[in-house]
Amino acid sequence: MIIVGLLAATLTTSAFLPQMIKTWRTKSAKDVSYTMLITFIIGIFLWLIYGILRKDIAIILANAFTLLFNLTILYLKIKYGRTPQSKRL
Amino acid sequence: MIIVGLLAATLTTSAFLPQMIKTWRTKSAKDVSYTMLITFIIGIFLWLIYGILRKDIAIILANAFTLLFNLTILYLKIKYGRTPQSKRL
Repeated sequence: MIIVGLLAATLTTSAFLPQMIKTWRTKSAKDVSYTMLITFIIGIFLWLIYGILRKDIAIILANAFTLLFNLTILYLKIKYGRTPQSKRL
Repeated sequence: MIIVGLLAATLTTSAFLPQMIKTWRTKSAKDVSYTMLITFIIGIFLWLIYGILRKDIAIILANAFTLLFNLTILYLKIKYGRTPQSKRL
């Protein structure tokens, strides 16, 4: 059972790596919604608390890394959102 | 404890709604990575199985809805990815 959880954790967590790399390469994240990112970050933080309360290592690991990656995507979006290119939209 | 889980589930699930709406409105999802989407969809499916195995209603509900929303984003990305505008990148 824990194998399924850890595999799920690895996949959903690592899914944010290509997004992070793509954002960095294209220097653009205008199609990634701010509302999504911030709602998601708060939600992930709550999942982390839930995982700790339930002593569920799959939930704890998944959400600790997902939180870190999404905070990085948010930072990149804020950084690149200030360049003139983003004013096209 | 279940309240924290359900609140977390509501936030991480509903985070995909604005992304879905944004993709539909801008008719563009080129900044949303395919690799991310597909890895994420497989991961979410495994979380759903994990939730069923652990009989964890917060995990089951969160992942059932997240799966549905992400399949919709994937569909929109495939659909809009075929328009000439996307050939700029």
